[in-house]
Amino acid sequence: MADEIGIAGNRVRSFVERVEQLESEIAELNEQKKEVFAEAKGEGFDVKILKEIIKIRKQDKDERDEHETLLDVYLRAMETAEPEAEPMKEAA
Amino acid sequence: MADEIGIAGNRVRSFVERVEQLESEIAELNEQKKEVFAEAKGEGFDVKILKEIIKIRKQDKDERDEHETLLDVYLRAMETAEPEAEPMKEAA
Amino acid sequence: MADEIGIAGNRVRSFVERVEQLESEIAELNEQKKEVFAEAKGEGFDVKILKEIIKIRKQDKDERDEHETLLDVYLRAMETAEPEAEPMKEAA
Amino acid sequence: MADEIGIAGNRVRSFVERVEQLESEIAELNEQKKEVFAEAKGEGFDVKILKEIIKIRKQDKDERDEHETLLDVYLRAMETAEPEAEPMKEAA
Repeated sequence: MADEIGIAGNRVRSFVERVEQLESEIAELNEQKKEVFAEAKGEGFDVKILKEIIKIRKQDKDERDEHETLLDVYLRAMETAEPEAEPMKEAA
Repeated sequence: MADEIGIAGNRVRSFVERVEQLESEIAELNEQKKEVFAEAKGEGFDVKILKEIIKIRKQDKDERDEHETLLDVYLRAMETAEPEAEPMKEAA
Repeated sequence: MADEIGIAGNRVRSFVERVEQLESEIAELNEQKKEVFAEAKGEGFDVKILKEIIKIRKQDKDERDEHETLLDVYLRAMETAEPEAEPMKEAA
Repeated sequence: MADEIGIAGNRVRSFVERVEQLESEIAELNEQKKEVFAEAKGEGFDVKILKEIIKIRKQDKDERDEHETLLDVYLRAMETAEPEAEPMKEAA
């Protein structure tokens, strides 16, 4: 039932409470994620490396290989290139 | 069973897969959050306002009131204050 | 002059170095920003309030007033609304 | 000169305006950064690769090599490891 200017307060509350519920479940899962990484760290694993593996596994293998290859090409080209000729200074 | 340099590959895989499982559940809940906001938008509600309400409800009421009061004080003080006297230019 | 597979290494280096130069200037300015806030804090000002004033001044005044009004309307509607009737449980 | 409750409005304005000035300079430099990348893209360079080169050059070379080596070790260990034995189901 909308209040005097037509905002259905109960619908507002329902949307707000549904999102709050989902956010609390997300917070709980993020907590569990932290615990997994803490457990791994406790066993001596490098958490940064674990996170990178998870990131890599989300990428398409071919795309990743192509990216790495192109990166190498750019790095080598850059390292072996002659410095750019300085733009000619206008005669004073 | 660790490989030749002592990294227990199965433990790595277990940690990676547990995090991936948690991340897919988080992604699913985020998807549901989007759907709630899409439903609210479909009913004509202002999603930015709903998000601000959710943010406000996470804050301590007194802290928020204090913040708002101090903000008003600063804004009024700034608007009513004389411009700062220009630092005296050293005699040339 | 491009290397064997056509990447002009000197152009790569030029782009990289130009961005690096800009990024170092940006980092310097961010450092100065930190110093201004540290100075304000030293004089007893509330830095969170100063940041909110800066954020507010970027917003269009009318848009901000409209947003605040709508937020109040939503909050009041929500607080005064009857709880939503529970969906009827299907007869067991 | 502080207003009735002791907030020196002109000092507030001075801090706000100094930060606003720095932020507008930062915005200008970010704009120039975008232009450099747009120019590079226009010449057919892969902007994502350029950004990764800039990121790499910020890292300590040895640290980066060590990271890459460890990443390979983890990936190989994971790929070659036996699946973890399923925890024994308690007798029903």
